[in-house]
Amino acid sequence: MTFAATILTLYPEMFPGPLGQSLAGKALERGDWSCETVNPRDFATDRHRTVDDTPAGGGAGMVLKADILGAVIDHARERQPDAPVLAMTPRGTPITQARIRELAAGPGVTILCGRFEGFDERIFDARDVEEVSLADIVLSGGEPAALAILDACIRLLPGVMGAASSGTEESFENGLLEYPHYTRPQIWEGRTIPEVLRSGDHAKIAAWREAQAEAITRLRRPDLWERHRGARVQSASGARRKDKEPDQ
Amino acid sequence: MTFAATILTLYPEMFPGPLGQSLAGKALERGDWSCETVNPRDFATDRHRTVDDTPAGGGAGMVLKADILGAVIDHARERQPDAPVLAMTPRGTPITQARIRELAAGPGVTILCGRFEGFDERIFDARDVEEVSLADIVLSGGEPAALAILDACIRLLPGVMGAASSGTEESFENGLLEYPHYTRPQIWEGRTIPEVLRSGDHAKIAAWREAQAEAITRLRRPDLWERHRGARVQSASGARRKDKEPDQ
Repeated sequence: MTFAATILTLYPEMFPGPLGQSLAGKALERGDWSCETVNPRDFATDRHRTVDDTPAGGGAGMVLKADILGAVIDHARERQPDAPVLAMTPRGTPITQARIRELAAGPGVTILCGRFEGFDERIFDARDVEEVSLADIVLSGGEPAALAILDACIRLLPGVMGAASSGTEESFENGLLEYPHYTRPQIWEGRTIPEVLRSGDHAKIAAWREAQAEAITRLRRPDLWERHRGARVQSASGARRKDKEPDQ
Repeated sequence: MTFAATILTLYPEMFPGPLGQSLAGKALERGDWSCETVNPRDFATDRHRTVDDTPAGGGAGMVLKADILGAVIDHARERQPDAPVLAMTPRGTPITQARIRELAAGPGVTILCGRFEGFDERIFDARDVEEVSLADIVLSGGEPAALAILDACIRLLPGVMGAASSGTEESFENGLLEYPHYTRPQIWEGRTIPEVLRSGDHAKIAAWREAQAEAITRLRRPDLWERHRGARVQSASGARRKDKEPDQ
């Protein structure tokens, strides 16, 4: 099945962009996913193809018009009724690996990219749109965020990563940051690969890696660590778990 | 002054990619920033140009070799001694708008992009590298994250956004999510622009926007809200503030 990505953007030439290369690029060639863009400008009704206007109440920048946004979202939804519509905005819910996994397991995703000052707020009352934030930073538009979201989805599609890679032992998949990696040379600039990793004792290696993952998560991301512990306690007490990943 | 971006990547063809368009693209043409890539593969010493090897202790995927990473980082640092070196990894410190602002105010940035399973951990002991995470999601490599980080920096460079846009009233700049925006039409699908925004009373509009920004931050991002309140209380009590943005 093809995962259908539809990007609503004033800069269609940005797509597939970097996703036309490497793993995602090969997957695109194979038809594991498709990449279509829809330009809101095509839904403008005046001869200047206006998509934005000055903010009501004054202030800097321009706001994307609700009527244009409504029309382009309706168009995308007609073509792809089952795909969720995400709007990239720093005001949205922070994206998580659990949400990425849900999206990747679905038929595709429609991503609305803002530019200028933002979206007319009424679009979020009037249409079923999920406001999603990539990070607590401000981008020039939603496009770089859409590329990151799509990249994260595509690598999870069946067959894309191949047998050599694993999605189960990496950061966030168990609510923890990943343990540290090492590879040859054995000694580099006087630094040696930890002894345990050369022991051949698989149980000992697994225990060391788990302890390392826990230690680094506790140190660097107390927020993730608290959620991880909470989920573990809940699980151990036999409480009914929600249908959610422990790290979310 | 030109902001020098150097990306250490196995996929140099991904850059400038989307940053060759729109605001960032025009800024690149003007010379407000420069974009160079360095391929770690050029630092391989065998005839297969090997950059990775299997993980010590077993497991899926491949690990980028410390000797290759050391060589490519040293090369970048020789060319750009004053630019901080960031490594994009989900194990890193989450990026913030305050860090973006610091980077944008500096001479440039060198960004190391991982692929495969990750970096040999010894590189972080041996070199001064800042591990940075874009979001709690797993990407196929550091490249989409590097594009987002660069985009956020470039828009803050002098002259890039132009007089029409403002960096001071947007999400995170004061520790809050942004207030909602509206623009014409006045009535859309039966939904009206809030009355206050049509009042012409600038003080009232400013107060409404501040209240809206506070309400949405409290509702959607209690984590940001707590930090915002903490910073405000500290400020009000006359305590000496750290040299940090209130939202970080």
